[in-house]
Amino acid sequence: MPCVNHTLVVFAVKCFTRFLISGSYSHSLGLEVVRRDVSKYIHQRDGIESNWENIFLACGATEAVKMLLEMISTTGRDSERAGVMIPIPQYPLYSATNSEYNNFQINYYLDESDNWSLSADELKRALTSVKGQCIPKAIVIINPGNPTGQVLPQKCMEDIIKFAVDNRLMLIADEVYQQNVYQPDKYPWASFKKVLSNMGPSYSGKLELASLMSCSKGYMGECGYRGGYCELLNFDPAVQAQLYKALSARLCPPLMGQVALDAIVNPPRPGEPSYSLFVKERDDVLSALKDKADITYSALNSMPNMSCNPVQGAMYAFPRIHLPPKAIQEAKRRGEAPDFFYCLQLLEEKGICVVPGSGFGQQEGTYHFRTTILPSIEKMKYVMKQIEEFHISFMKKYS
Amino acid sequence: MPCVNHTLVVFAVKCFTRFLISGSYSHSLGLEVVRRDVSKYIHQRDGIESNWENIFLACGATEAVKMLLEMISTTGRDSERAGVMIPIPQYPLYSATNSEYNNFQINYYLDESDNWSLSADELKRALTSVKGQCIPKAIVIINPGNPTGQVLPQKCMEDIIKFAVDNRLMLIADEVYQQNVYQPDKYPWASFKKVLSNMGPSYSGKLELASLMSCSKGYMGECGYRGGYCELLNFDPAVQAQLYKALSARLCPPLMGQVALDAIVNPPRPGEPSYSLFVKERDDVLSALKDKADITYSALNSMPNMSCNPVQGAMYAFPRIHLPPKAIQEAKRRGEAPDFFYCLQLLEEKGICVVPGSGFGQQEGTYHFRTTILPSIEKMKYVMKQIEEFHISFMKKYS
Repeated sequence: MPCVNHTLVVFAVKCFTRFLISGSYSHSLGLEVVRRDVSKYIHQRDGIESNWENIFLACGATEAVKMLLEMISTTGRDSERAGVMIPIPQYPLYSATNSEYNNFQINYYLDESDNWSLSADELKRALTSVKGQCIPKAIVIINPGNPTGQVLPQKCMEDIIKFAVDNRLMLIADEVYQQNVYQPDKYPWASFKKVLSNMGPSYSGKLELASLMSCSKGYMGECGYRGGYCELLNFDPAVQAQLYKALSARLCPPLMGQVALDAIVNPPRPGEPSYSLFVKERDDVLSALKDKADITYSALNSMPNMSCNPVQGAMYAFPRIHLPPKAIQEAKRRGEAPDFFYCLQLLEEKGICVVPGSGFGQQEGTYHFRTTILPSIEKMKYVMKQIEEFHISFMKKYS
Repeated sequence: MPCVNHTLVVFAVKCFTRFLISGSYSHSLGLEVVRRDVSKYIHQRDGIESNWENIFLACGATEAVKMLLEMISTTGRDSERAGVMIPIPQYPLYSATNSEYNNFQINYYLDESDNWSLSADELKRALTSVKGQCIPKAIVIINPGNPTGQVLPQKCMEDIIKFAVDNRLMLIADEVYQQNVYQPDKYPWASFKKVLSNMGPSYSGKLELASLMSCSKGYMGECGYRGGYCELLNFDPAVQAQLYKALSARLCPPLMGQVALDAIVNPPRPGEPSYSLFVKERDDVLSALKDKADITYSALNSMPNMSCNPVQGAMYAFPRIHLPPKAIQEAKRRGEAPDFFYCLQLLEEKGICVVPGSGFGQQEGTYHFRTTILPSIEKMKYVMKQIEEFHISFMKKYS
């Protein structure tokens, strides 16, 4: 993750001594003081009221995702399974968790040719294609995207909300990269809650929305503490009560994760001794990430037979590799997916580890890999140079 | 929980600086160094080799229990559901998790008249009674018992192992109270692993055993860090690989919980600067718990119409209240379970909160409550006095 953030550590220690509770159980939904601080953060972010009792804390956003996907699951088989729409490419937590809880995975495809956007037409196509095969219950949107790095335009988010309301789908908004937005003027990020609120009463009271946030991303990258939250909106109180009851079986989220989350949603304020250092560190991390997003985008696009959409947000680039037929044949001969073959060769020749696109899903016949943009600028430049050398020689070998 | 343990905090900080990793992800099964330290702890405890690769770390023992009970679950209905034998009374995590994962709960009863022991006959009766209703897959044993506080004799453990092997059941050994044993000369505790090993090759290679341990109990009580481990024995490597794959979706257990666990399984050693303070603190906590176990046992048994088995281990007393018919009638009139009615009256009249036995399960027509023995000796004496006052006046009122 990006850095050891000195200010955050100091601040976490401050919180720790303030609470003096890291060794004890908390309320099973998390400490009230942290849930209240989360609701203030959301209020400040969106300009919309947030009720702290609709917020539960989790062992990273991951646990919240798992609880939500479990909540809608059924013990049914075949057409009685709960259907969950997920993007392709997607962060594999979603496919894995659907599989874990017997949910039926409904793929909708992001449009690579239009900067990984997604259209209402594609959502309709995906839902229609599984008619009678499951009971559609939810749609997952990752914004900013993982592994694809796009930031969704407001119009697109409105279309998604309309689609979810029309089809009575719960919207799971994976918004863990909300602080990783690199061109906020050109590609601004907004929460689904805010966009929903702006659509007025014919929509705002009708969408069951679950929004996720984490300590593990942003400028923080404090992933080892396992802190995260989920805000629920418009849930039937009886359903929410059942979810909260199910959550109580885990006893409580890790206290240090709760403390770290509190440090993040309630950072140093102007006039406080560590404010200026905090701002400097946060801005340094985010501006370096922006630079690395640009470096990665430019470097990847300068390579022949490689194309990459701009990294507008999150922490990844997901370039397409246009593999020649001979490389695909060689991969088949070895019993490997073509992009896996490419990535393995890169690892063996250069010691650079990237993740094959087949792990995230991709349009049939296209090949990608995911790389983070987390190493230092110097290292990213070196790595891009190494990838280029490998790529050119690989392409030559199999052309 | 029992105390703020100074030495452990100091030691945790030492570990923390040694690892310097609390903000990062670890391997999804936990840090190798901690898993190795756990295996050394088990080796030293039992005198039997432990393979660190059979150990996975978890967000408290709770997460490990959930993963094990999920692993054996099926999406089937009725007779195709996985059957799990659990003790009655039991710690309600087991009934809740079975319900969560569609498992069929098979109740076996602990024998209150014989110090909450359990017999092979009762296990057979329980299993026979559900024939054709489910596919029995596992048996849960809590030792030392929660909420019942008994420490199982070796002969009883051998019977359980034979029963599990004969019926091809995985044994989930909840051994989180292994350091809370108050009369080790009279009622010694042994791990199921050790007892199994002593039974020789006709059993030792045949039982699928999962043993659980936690940072939340013992002399530590560091429950907020959510540290725990599970050791697997004799699992089919393909099954174990699937379990480990499923565990990887959660990313990793909380790092601070891993660090706390390491401090517990690898405590200060003779010659190290904090060794004597560590020993003093540990022994003080455990000896105070022993005193409180005795005080609670004596006080409860001195009350009319109340009986309590000795608290041999764990942190709880689970006395039986012999409620008069009029009290039972009054509870029914209010639509409350009789023991719930009793506990609510105690709470309202004395401000003392104990948990009704109906939350743990009990023999039909018997009534209990669970109280911890965690407050200070002074407070426990006061609380017992208050309970006695309430109890005598309650019994008088309804006699």
